Amino acid sequence: MKDCLFCQFIAKEKECPIIYEDDNIFVMLDVRPATTSGGHCLVIPKKHYHLITDVPDDELIHVGKGIKMMTKALLKEADGVNVLQNNMHCAGQAEPHVHFHIIPRYKDDDIQIEVWEERHYKDGEDIKVIKRIQKLLKE
Amino acid sequence: MKDCLFCQFIAKEKECPIIYEDDNIFVMLDVRPATTSGGHCLVIPKKHYHLITDVPDDELIHVGKGIKMMTKALLKEADGVNVLQNNMHCAGQAEPHVHFHIIPRYKDDDIQIEVWEERHYKDGEDIKVIKRIQKLLKE
Repeated sequence: MKDCLFCQFIAKEKECPIIYEDDNIFVMLDVRPATTSGGHCLVIPKKHYHLITDVPDDELIHVGKGIKMMTKALLKEADGVNVLQNNMHCAGQAEPHVHFHIIPRYKDDDIQIEVWEERHYKDGEDIKVIKRIQKLLKE
Repeated sequence: MKDCLFCQFIAKEKECPIIYEDDNIFVMLDVRPATTSGGHCLVIPKKHYHLITDVPDDELIHVGKGIKMMTKALLKEADGVNVLQNNMHCAGQAEPHVHFHIIPRYKDDDIQIEVWEERHYKDGEDIKVIKRIQKLLKE
């Protein structure tokens, strides 16, 4: 897509720190990483899709293989890895081209990914939520 | 696996708030959710694997379809969705059975997923990191 920064990186119209590419996926360093030492990277399908729900299943498997490949590589050095994919701006999606953050983690690092305050369902509240989601699944 | 809480849920040996299941995947509410109103749920392969790197490709596509299905359902009500998968305890993996958090997001909610302090690569530092990761990919 013409105005998409990631499409411009993939088409080599703009420079970016490329780690790996093949016919289906493109892997680059996140230029605003959580950690510069570990190699926080992005796994991106070459074709332009906005959300994960837009990616066809046969493309998603290429992306899944890429996520596994990068996680496996980073785990040779890191103590853990977060895989994070954000849909829509309010969820932290900075570019409207679907991408997966692969974030290497180290014991006692200062990165916090899960920072939500844990909440608990009151009696019967979870049943209502389940029924609502099951209805959404059928719509 | 005998001592795995998720395997016990899947085998119906312990109760949990089930949303959906089929031959390959199991979807439940997260009992310690980021939001109780939205329906933060977990997509889990039925077979026991510890990390995403352990999941065979032909199983990963089932999980991928499940993630798309749940994200699509939640986006009918929510403004955005985060997909988060943590590998190893230090990355926030609470149960050693691979699972994907599907977290509905709302404009101006109080959930923060991306809270890392953004860092920037100094001159040439990114090239060194890329070379190191490319070496790890070949090991």
